[in-house]
Amino acid sequence: MTKYALGIDFGTESGRAVLVDVADGREVGSAVYRYENGVIDEALPAAAGAVRLEPDWALQDPDDYIRTFQVAVPAVLRETGIDPSDVIGVGIDFTACTMLPTLADGTPLCLLPEFRAEPNAWVKLWKHHAAQPEADRINGVARNAGESWLGRYGGKISSEWFFSKALQILDEAPHVYAAADRLIEAADWVVWQLTGEETRNTCTAGYKALWSKREGFPPDAYFAALDPRLRHVVDEKMSRTPRPIGEQAGRLTTRAAGWTSLRAGTPVAVANVDAHVSVPAVGVTAPGTMVSIMGTSTCDMVVGPEEKLFEGMCGVVEDGILPGLFGFEAGQSGVGDIFAWFVENGVPGTYADAARKRNVDVHALLEAEAARLTPGESGLVALDWWNGNRSVLVDADLTGVLVGATLATRAPEIYRALIESTAFGMRVIIDAFERGGVAVNDIVACGGLPDRNRLLMQIYADVTGRQIRVSASQQAPALGSAMFGAVAAGAAAGGYDTITDAAARMAHLRDEAYVPDRARQAAYEPLFQEYLGLHDYFGRGGNDVMKRLKAMRGRALADAARAEAPAGRA
Amino acid sequence: MTKYALGIDFGTESGRAVLVDVADGREVGSAVYRYENGVIDEALPAAAGAVRLEPDWALQDPDDYIRTFQVAVPAVLRETGIDPSDVIGVGIDFTACTMLPTLADGTPLCLLPEFRAEPNAWVKLWKHHAAQPEADRINGVARNAGESWLGRYGGKISSEWFFSKALQILDEAPHVYAAADRLIEAADWVVWQLTGEETRNTCTAGYKALWSKREGFPPDAYFAALDPRLRHVVDEKMSRTPRPIGEQAGRLTTRAAGWTSLRAGTPVAVANVDAHVSVPAVGVTAPGTMVSIMGTSTCDMVVGPEEKLFEGMCGVVEDGILPGLFGFEAGQSGVGDIFAWFVENGVPGTYADAARKRNVDVHALLEAEAARLTPGESGLVALDWWNGNRSVLVDADLTGVLVGATLATRAPEIYRALIESTAFGMRVIIDAFERGGVAVNDIVACGGLPDRNRLLMQIYADVTGRQIRVSASQQAPALGSAMFGAVAAGAAAGGYDTITDAAARMAHLRDEAYVPDRARQAAYEPLFQEYLGLHDYFGRGGNDVMKRLKAMRGRALADAARAEAPAGRA
Repeated sequence: MTKYALGIDFGTESGRAVLVDVADGREVGSAVYRYENGVIDEALPAAAGAVRLEPDWALQDPDDYIRTFQVAVPAVLRETGIDPSDVIGVGIDFTACTMLPTLADGTPLCLLPEFRAEPNAWVKLWKHHAAQPEADRINGVARNAGESWLGRYGGKISSEWFFSKALQILDEAPHVYAAADRLIEAADWVVWQLTGEETRNTCTAGYKALWSKREGFPPDAYFAALDPRLRHVVDEKMSRTPRPIGEQAGRLTTRAAGWTSLRAGTPVAVANVDAHVSVPAVGVTAPGTMVSIMGTSTCDMVVGPEEKLFEGMCGVVEDGILPGLFGFEAGQSGVGDIFAWFVENGVPGTYADAARKRNVDVHALLEAEAARLTPGESGLVALDWWNGNRSVLVDADLTGVLVGATLATRAPEIYRALIESTAFGMRVIIDAFERGGVAVNDIVACGGLPDRNRLLMQIYADVTGRQIRVSASQQAPALGSAMFGAVAAGAAAGGYDTITDAAARMAHLRDEAYVPDRARQAAYEPLFQEYLGLHDYFGRGGNDVMKRLKAMRGRALADAARAEAPAGRA
Repeated sequence: MTKYALGIDFGTESGRAVLVDVADGREVGSAVYRYENGVIDEALPAAAGAVRLEPDWALQDPDDYIRTFQVAVPAVLRETGIDPSDVIGVGIDFTACTMLPTLADGTPLCLLPEFRAEPNAWVKLWKHHAAQPEADRINGVARNAGESWLGRYGGKISSEWFFSKALQILDEAPHVYAAADRLIEAADWVVWQLTGEETRNTCTAGYKALWSKREGFPPDAYFAALDPRLRHVVDEKMSRTPRPIGEQAGRLTTRAAGWTSLRAGTPVAVANVDAHVSVPAVGVTAPGTMVSIMGTSTCDMVVGPEEKLFEGMCGVVEDGILPGLFGFEAGQSGVGDIFAWFVENGVPGTYADAARKRNVDVHALLEAEAARLTPGESGLVALDWWNGNRSVLVDADLTGVLVGATLATRAPEIYRALIESTAFGMRVIIDAFERGGVAVNDIVACGGLPDRNRLLMQIYADVTGRQIRVSASQQAPALGSAMFGAVAAGAAAGGYDTITDAAARMAHLRDEAYVPDRARQAAYEPLFQEYLGLHDYFGRGGNDVMKRLKAMRGRALADAARAEAPAGRA
C-alpha cells in the first residue's frame, strides 16, 4: 500500500502543499494558495483601517496561513484522489524570521479588535527591515558586554532576526508587547494551529533567536541591558526548550483535520525553515557538500561535526539543519535580483526586440550571447553588491561596482561580468568556510536559478572549481518538509526513523553535473584575484566611498522629501 | 561696401565653407562637401585596388580636399549671390595631425600610379592609431636621451602626432618614405594648393611636430637615434621656419580661382587647426579664459603670457593659438561619445518608447529626468574613462568605472553620474592648469554638446565653479578661419591687422551664461573628492586592475581570432 507524506511550504507570496510518495520521493501532486493579503508593505488591509506603514515595513496576515491549510491541502488531496488515511505525516517549512505576538491560546493579537489597526500587532515578515535601530542596539550592547553568542553569528545580527523585531514591538507599541503572552515564529505558530500544542524548533531558535544547545539563550541580564522590560522575555513569552528538528511536534487536531481534510491524529513534524529543510531534500546529510539555494538571493548551507567560528559564517547552530550536526549558514544578498535589475534597467531595447523575434526571453538571449565569451574577454570585473554584502563582509551599505567599461562594451559582456561577480562572491564564501575548517568539496544547487541559466551554473563550477549537481525537485522545500513529515510518522507507520534514512530514499538529483573546465578555471584565477583586490579595497575600509555615497543619497532624498511635503508638515 | 571673408573648415567627414561679414562676423551662408571617400579605415578605394587595411588605420583621399574647394566654395558664393571681388580673404582650418607624403611640387604620392595601392602613401588622418609602436619608440628614445622638448608635451607624445606617422611610413614602406620629397600637414598642403607656395604653420608645427619658437625641432641626432635614415627628416622633407598663424601665406592662384570661383590674388591665411582657430572665434584673445570644444571628446585651450610646464597640459606652443602668447592645450578623450554609448548600450527600451511618445530623443528624455535629481542623489560616482584619459593621466589603457549601483538605480541616475564624471574630469584639468600657474577664471564653450544638453552645461558650471558662456556660432572653426582670412587681407583691404581686432568685431557669444549655483557647487565638493580618490587609486598605480583587464581582454580576443582563423593560417 503506497504511503504519502505532505509537505507544506509557506513562502513569501503563497503557501504550497505537495504530496510525496514516501517510498521514493515522487511528487504526486501539489496545490498553491496565493495569500489574499500577500506582503503588507504599504498599508494595513482596508478591514483593519488601511493604516499607512512606514518604509521598510513588511507584514503578513496570519489568516492567510490558515487559508493555506483550508485551500491548498484539500485541493491537492482532491486533485490526486489520495485517501487521507494514506497520508502518514505532515511537515511544514516557513520563511524566517517571520514572527508574531499572540495570546496564551495562540490567538494572534492582530485578530483582536483592539489591536487590529496596530501595525506592531501583525506578523512581521522576514523582510521587514524597519527594526534596524533595534538591531544596532542589540549588536552594540552585546559587543560592550562581550556576549559569547555573538561569535556564532559572525559578530553581528540582522534587523530581520527575532529579537530585533521583538524589541521594535516593545519600543514602538509597549501595550502590544505587554499584551503578547507569546512571541513566536510563524513556523511554530502554524504547527501549533495544526496540533493544538505550542512547540518551538531548534532551527529558528538557533539561527534567528540566538539560542544554542549548549548555552541556551543570552542571559536575562543581557536582555535587561537592552530594556529592563525585556529581562524575562524568554521565560515570559518564549520557550527555553526548542524541539530538535526531525521530531514529531504532535498530531493533527480535529479542527485542523476539518480545515485540511486530513485525518485527525496524523503526525506533524516540528517546524522548519524553507532554506534549511532543502538540505535533506537534495540528499545532503553529511559534511563536505554545500547546499546552495539560488534565487533572487542565495543561501549557502554546510554541515560539520563540530563548531567552528570564522568570518563569513552568519550562523552556526547545533541541530540547526540536521540532528547531530552543526549547521553553518552564509549567503549572498543579491544574485538573481541583480540579473533581473540589469535586464530591467540596463539592456537596450534592441535586445528585447531580438529576443521577441527569436521567441526567447531577454535573459535567454543575453545568456546565449554571453556564453560565446571566454573568461576575461569582456575586460570587465564587477563587485556583486547591488543589494549589499551578506557574506563575508556583512554590510548592507556596500554597493555595486563595474570596472573596465569602454566604448566597445556591450550588454552581454556586462551581463556575463555580473554573473561572474556573483560566482566570485560564492568563491569568497567557500574559501572562508574552508579556511574556517569546514570542508566544501562539492555543491548541490536548488532554487529557481539553476533551471533558468545553464551558463551561470557552468561559470559557478569554473570559478569555484567545484562540481555542481542540481536538485531533481523544483519544489525542494516542500519535498524536504514532506520528508520530515515521514520522519514524524516513523518507520513503524510506513515512514522513516531518521531524516538520513528519508533522504536516502526520497531525495534525488539530476543526472547531469556541472563539472569545472580546468582551462577556464585557470583563466578565472587572475580575474578572481582582481575581484578580491577590489572586494577588500571597497569592503574592508580601503575606501569607504560606498558608505559616503549612500549617506549623500540618503540626505538628498530626505531633502527632496522635505521639499515636497506640504507646507506646515515639514 | 560690405566685405566678406571665407572660412573653410576641413572636418573628419566633410569640408565646410562659410562666408562671413567682416564688419560684424555675421555668417551669411555656408555649404558643405561630404568627402566622397570619407574616412578610409577598412580598405583603400576600389580604384586603388581595394587593399585591406589593418585595424586602427584611418586614411583620407587628398582629392576630397580639392573637391571641397571645387564644390563647397562655388556653392556658397552661388547661394549668397556675393560678388567674389567682395571676398577679401580666405582662411582654412583642418583636423590635425593629418599628414601626407608628396613630391616636391606637392603632388600626393598616393595619386601616383606606382603608389596608389600602398596605404602608407595616403593621407594619414588624425585618428589613424596604427603608429603606436612608433610613438612608444619616440617617447622611449626621448626619455633616455633626456630630450628637453618632452616636458612641453606632458612627458609623452601621441601615436596621432606627426613623427609617429612619419616613422611608420619609414618603418613599413621605406620606398614611400624615400620617394616623399615632402612630409606635410594636410592643413599646409591645402594652403599650398590654393597659393602655389609651400608654407608651414606654427600651430601644427608646435602641437604636433615638436617644434618650438625658441628651440626649433629636436636635434638631428635625436632623429638619427630613432632611425639613421630619419636624421635629416626636417631639412629634407619639412621646413625649419613655420609661419606664425595670423600671417598671410600667399595669394590665390589662377588654378585655385578656377576651382573656387574666387578671384585670383585673394589673400590666403597661414593654415590653422580646427580646435585652435576656435579660440578667437569665440572672442578669446587674452589669458584667463578657457575655451572648451565639447563634442564626442573635449579639447581645452588657454593662453598665457609665459611658458609653464605642468602635469595635465598636453602641449604648450608659443604662437600656437594666438600670436605673441603661449597656447596651452589639454582635453578629455571621451565626453559626448560616453553619453552616446550609454544611450545605445545601457538604456532600456522603455525610455525609447517614452521618448517616442513625447516626440523627443532619448538624450532629451534622460536629461529631463536626470535634471530632477540633486547632487549626490543618485548615490553613484563614475570615472569618465570609457575612452581612456587624455588629461591629466595621459593613459589610453584606463577604462570606465561606476561605483554605487543598487537595485534601486535607474538609467537617468547613471546618465547624470556619467555627465558629472566628465565634469569632474574637466575640474581636474582646470585645477592642474591653476596649480601650474595658468589662470582659468571662466569658460567659453563651443562644439556640438553645449547646444544639445543644458543640464550638462549647468553641471559643468556647478562642478567647476566657473561661469560658462557659449559661442553664438555653431560653426566656430569656419568662423575663426574667416577671421584669419580677414587678417590675411589686412585693415587696408577692409579686413583687420590683428586677430585681436578681428575677434573684437567678429566673435559673438550668446547672451545667456551658465552661472554656478553656490549651493550645488558646495554639494558637489564631497562628490568631487570621491571622484579624485578613485581617480588617483585607479589612475596612479594604486590598483592597475584596468590595465590587467585590458591585457586579459586583448589575449582573449587574440585567442578567439586564432580559433576562428581557417586552418593553415594560424
